[in-house]
Amino acid sequence: MIVADYVAKFLKSKKIKEIFMLTGYGSMYLNDSIKKEKIKYFATRNEATAPIMAASYARVTNNVGVACVTAGPGATNAIPGLAEAFVDSSPIIVISGQVIRKHTTIMTGLKNIRTFGTAEINILPIVKPLTKYAVTILDEKNTRYIFEKAFYEATNGRKGPVWIDIPLDIQNKKIQPHKLRSFTPPNEKKLHNLKLKLFYDFLKNSKKPLIVCGQGVKFSNTFDIIYKFLSKKNHIPIIFTRAAQDLTSHKKKYILGQAGIKGTKYCKRIMTDADLVINFGSRLAPQFAGHDFEAFQNAKVISVDIEKDELNKKGIKIDLRIKSDLKKFVPRIIEFLNKKKIPNYKSWANYCGSLKKIEIPNSVNKKNPIDLYYFMNKLGKFSNRKNILITDAGSNYYIGGQVWKFEKGQKELTSISNAAMGLSIPLAVGASIGQKKKQVLAVTGDGSLELNIQELKTISHYQLNVKLFVINNGGYVSMHNWADTFFDGRRVDNSKDTGEGTLNLKKIAKAFGLEYFKISDYRNIEKDLTKICKNNKPLFIEVITDNFQKIFDAFKDKG
Amino acid sequence: MIVADYVAKFLKSKKIKEIFMLTGYGSMYLNDSIKKEKIKYFATRNEATAPIMAASYARVTNNVGVACVTAGPGATNAIPGLAEAFVDSSPIIVISGQVIRKHTTIMTGLKNIRTFGTAEINILPIVKPLTKYAVTILDEKNTRYIFEKAFYEATNGRKGPVWIDIPLDIQNKKIQPHKLRSFTPPNEKKLHNLKLKLFYDFLKNSKKPLIVCGQGVKFSNTFDIIYKFLSKKNHIPIIFTRAAQDLTSHKKKYILGQAGIKGTKYCKRIMTDADLVINFGSRLAPQFAGHDFEAFQNAKVISVDIEKDELNKKGIKIDLRIKSDLKKFVPRIIEFLNKKKIPNYKSWANYCGSLKKIEIPNSVNKKNPIDLYYFMNKLGKFSNRKNILITDAGSNYYIGGQVWKFEKGQKELTSISNAAMGLSIPLAVGASIGQKKKQVLAVTGDGSLELNIQELKTISHYQLNVKLFVINNGGYVSMHNWADTFFDGRRVDNSKDTGEGTLNLKKIAKAFGLEYFKISDYRNIEKDLTKICKNNKPLFIEVITDNFQKIFDAFKDKG
Repeated sequence: MIVADYVAKFLKSKKIKEIFMLTGYGSMYLNDSIKKEKIKYFATRNEATAPIMAASYARVTNNVGVACVTAGPGATNAIPGLAEAFVDSSPIIVISGQVIRKHTTIMTGLKNIRTFGTAEINILPIVKPLTKYAVTILDEKNTRYIFEKAFYEATNGRKGPVWIDIPLDIQNKKIQPHKLRSFTPPNEKKLHNLKLKLFYDFLKNSKKPLIVCGQGVKFSNTFDIIYKFLSKKNHIPIIFTRAAQDLTSHKKKYILGQAGIKGTKYCKRIMTDADLVINFGSRLAPQFAGHDFEAFQNAKVISVDIEKDELNKKGIKIDLRIKSDLKKFVPRIIEFLNKKKIPNYKSWANYCGSLKKIEIPNSVNKKNPIDLYYFMNKLGKFSNRKNILITDAGSNYYIGGQVWKFEKGQKELTSISNAAMGLSIPLAVGASIGQKKKQVLAVTGDGSLELNIQELKTISHYQLNVKLFVINNGGYVSMHNWADTFFDGRRVDNSKDTGEGTLNLKKIAKAFGLEYFKISDYRNIEKDLTKICKNNKPLFIEVITDNFQKIFDAFKDKG
Repeated sequence: MIVADYVAKFLKSKKIKEIFMLTGYGSMYLNDSIKKEKIKYFATRNEATAPIMAASYARVTNNVGVACVTAGPGATNAIPGLAEAFVDSSPIIVISGQVIRKHTTIMTGLKNIRTFGTAEINILPIVKPLTKYAVTILDEKNTRYIFEKAFYEATNGRKGPVWIDIPLDIQNKKIQPHKLRSFTPPNEKKLHNLKLKLFYDFLKNSKKPLIVCGQGVKFSNTFDIIYKFLSKKNHIPIIFTRAAQDLTSHKKKYILGQAGIKGTKYCKRIMTDADLVINFGSRLAPQFAGHDFEAFQNAKVISVDIEKDELNKKGIKIDLRIKSDLKKFVPRIIEFLNKKKIPNYKSWANYCGSLKKIEIPNSVNKKNPIDLYYFMNKLGKFSNRKNILITDAGSNYYIGGQVWKFEKGQKELTSISNAAMGLSIPLAVGASIGQKKKQVLAVTGDGSLELNIQELKTISHYQLNVKLFVINNGGYVSMHNWADTFFDGRRVDNSKDTGEGTLNLKKIAKAFGLEYFKISDYRNIEKDLTKICKNNKPLFIEVITDNFQKIFDAFKDKG
C-alpha cells in the first residue's frame, strides 16, 4: 500500500468514521485514500473551521477528531481552529498535504526562503506552538511511528491537537507497515504516597472545604466517584468551571453551579468563605478565580493537574501541587481517605446550600424586545438529555453560562477559554455528525454569525439536526458595553459605520438553503421552541432581543 | 498621550488614512484611539481577511497597509491573511491587542501554559515564522523604537509583514514619545564593482540573452529603465512572472508576456533557447522555471535578488549571484554597460518576436456554457487603465494569467505564490479602498467564493466600486481535472457528496445586499460588460461556464 492508504487505514483502525476536509492538489493522494477507505468526508467551506468541527466531534464521541487540509493556504487557513483546539485541550489530528520534498523550504536548509513550490509554506514552525506534536514526514519509513505517536500524544496526558504534514511524493510512496518501526509509549511516573497523606492533612485541618471541578474531570470521567464519595458521603460542596458546568444538574444537593467572574455572586461568596479549595483538573484561570486570584484569598489550595506547568504559574498560590491524571489520582485518594476519619462538613455544606438561589440580575424583564436572560433561561429549561447546547462569543456565551442548570442531562459545547466569535456553527456541525441521534441547539449572535457564515451551507447540505438560534441584537453588544464603560460611550462599533447587525437574516437563511423561523415575542417562546424542535431538519431561527442588553458580573454587580 | 494614541498618530504620520479592523476587548484602547485620530476604520467580518485587505491596499497605494485585531482568536484568525502577505512580500503591519501583562503566558516563563488570561494566546512564536519582525511590547518605553523599526522592516529590503502585539495595560500607559529612544536604520553594504564587470562578461559572451522581470521590478519601480536601455536600445527580450505581468502591454516589441508552466508555449521555447537569463527580482519558482528548473537548462543565469537566501536555493543553478536592491542595482549596471560595447541581439530578438502568437488552446470555442478562456479574454480586452483586475484560485487564476495582455495599462492583483482560494473578495476590498477612483473587476469561482463569503457584506456596506464575477462552473474544476488525471476519474469532490457549486448565487447576492447580474451567453459578453461597468456601484455577476473546462499547460500540452 502507499502511505496515503496507510493513513486512511490507521484512522479507521482507531474507529474514526468521519473526517472534516477541504480537498486540494497538495493532499490529493490522502483525499483519494480516504474516499477509497470509505471514511465519510464532510466538506468544510473554509479550512479554518475543520479543526473546530473535529474538536467538537472528538468531545461528543470521546474519540479523536480528524481534519485533513491541503498545503500552503489550506494549512494556514486551519490555524484559527487549531489554536482553539489547543487552548481547550481538544484531542484532534490535523493532516496537511505538502508539496513534493524537493520543493519544500525545509529542504533548502535556508532561513529566509518564504515559499518554494507552488502554494508551499513550511507549516511546522507555525503550528508547533499550538500542538503537542507536529512533524513533517520526510522519510516514509517513519510513517507508522509518527501516526502512533501522534495518536498517543493527542489522547494522553493533557489532551490536545497534533499535526502531521505529508509531502505529495511521500503520500504516494509504497510501504509495508508491519515492517516499519512502531511507537512505544513512555512509562509514567508513579504518584508518591506522601502526596495522599498531605492531601488528607489539609482536609483534616479544614472546616470549610470546597471542590472545583474543571475540564479534567470531564476528560477523566471521574465526576461520579468524586461526587459520590466526597460530596454525598462527606458533604463537601462542588463548584464548576465553565468547561465542566454540564457534568450534572446544578439543582442537586452540594452542587453549587458555575463559579467565576461570570458565574454567580453566591459562588463568589462561598469561594471567599472557603478555607480549603480542592481543585480537580481546572487551570484556575483569572476569569474563574479572579483577576488577582482574589476569590481564594482565604483558602489553602490543593490543585491536581495533569500538566505540571499549570501548577507553577505565577499569581496562583497553590499550597499542595499534585501532578497527576485524575483517572489515576481520584480512585487512589478516595481509597486512601476511606480509611481515615474525615471531619463532618454538613453544616458548612448546608450553609452553602442555603445561599443557592437564582440570581437573575435586575435587568431581566418579561418584555419585548426579548431580554436575552429570559430567552436563554427558557432554552435551557426546554432542552433535555437529547440536546447538545452550544453558545457563541458575546452575551449569549455569558448568559448561557449563568442561567443554564442542566437539570435533564443536557450537554454543552462552547469556546471555553477563548470565548471566540463564530464557533457555534462549526461546533454544531461537528457535534451533530458525531452524535447523529442528538439534536443540537446552537446559539450565536448576529455579529458572531458572520465569521463562519459559509458553514451554513454545510448544515443545509448535510441536513444536520441543528437548530441555530441567531440572536439579533443589532450588533456587537459586548463591545458596546465596553465602549460605554471605558470610553464615554464612544462606540467604535455601530451599524452606521460598520454595517454590523444589518444583515437580513431571513434572506441569509434562505440563500444558504435553510428554513427560517422568527422568535420575537417573549410570551410565545415555549410554544415556538416546541414547534422548532419537533423534527430532525436544520432550522435557522432569528431571535429578536434587546440592543441594550447588560451582562451580570458576579465579582462586581449587585445580584 | 497613551501608547494607543501614539500608535494612531504614528500611522497617521505615515500617511495611513484607512485601517482594516475587527474590534475587541483586547484591543479596545487601540480601537478607540484610531477612532479619535479619525483614521477610517473598515470592519472586516473575520480577521482572516484583514491582512489581505491591508496587503492589497499597500500595493495600490505604494504605502504600507495596516490591520488591527484583538487578542487570542482575533490574532489567530488573522494568520491565514498574514501567511499570504508573507509569501507575496506585501508590506503590512498587523497590530494585535493582548491581555494585561500579568495574565500573559509569556510572563509565566513556563513552556506548557497554553492560555492564561481570557482569550489569551502567546501569538509571537506563531507569527514569527510569517513575519520580518514580530514583538510584544512589554515596556511602554520601547513603543517608539518598535513602531519605527516595524515600519522600516515592512518597507525595506524584501518587503513583508510585521506584527506588533500590545497588552491592554501597555495600550493605556502614558508616554512622552519625544523622550523615548528611536530606531536608526542599519547601514547597507555597498555593491562591489566586480559584480558589474562579471555581469558584463556574461552578457558579452551571450548570443541569446533573455530578461526575466519579477515582482522585485515592480516594488523597485525600475521597469521603465530596464525596458528602455536593455530592451529598446539593446534588443534583449523580456518575459514576466505572474507577479509582474501587468508591468506593461504584452503587445509591445520585445515584451514576450507571461512565462512559466501556466504561461505560453512559445515563452517556454524561448526560455529553452536562451543562452543567458538575466533575472531581475524573481525567485525563479518551480512553477515558473519548471519543476526541475528545466526551462533554463541551456542558459547561464544571472540573478539579482534583494534576498541572499533566494540566490542560494538548491535546485536552481545560478552562475552569477547579485544580492542587491534593484532600485540601486539597475541604475548602476546601466551606467556601467553604457560605457561598454554590447553585442547586437536584434536577430535573436526578432526571432523571439516571430514566435509570439495568441496560443488559445484547442478547447476554446464560441459556445454556451461559456468557455472560460473566451470570457477571460473578453474581460481583459474590455478593461483599461481605470481597472484593477483580480483573479482567485483555480481555473480563472491560470486563465487570466494566460490570456490577459494588459494593452491599456490595466493593473492586476492576485494571490501570487499560493494561488490561494477565496482571496478575490478581500483583495478587491483593499484595492477599492486604496484607489477609490478605480473600478475593480474581480473574478472568483463558485468554490473560492465560499471561503470568504462573509466579506460580500463589506463590499455592499461600504458601497465599493467592485464588480465581482463569480464563475459558476458547478464546483472545483481544478480538483476534477486532477482526479481525472491521477485517480481514474474518482472524484472526491462532487456536488452530490459535498454540495459544492450548489449555492443559489442570486439569493446569496441579494442576502448580502448586492445587486445581481447574470452572464450566460457568449454572444452578449461585450454588451453585458458595458452595462456592468457603467456605474460605481458594487455588483455581483454570475458567469455560467463549462464544468468540463480544461486548462492549458505550457510545459505539457500542445499549443
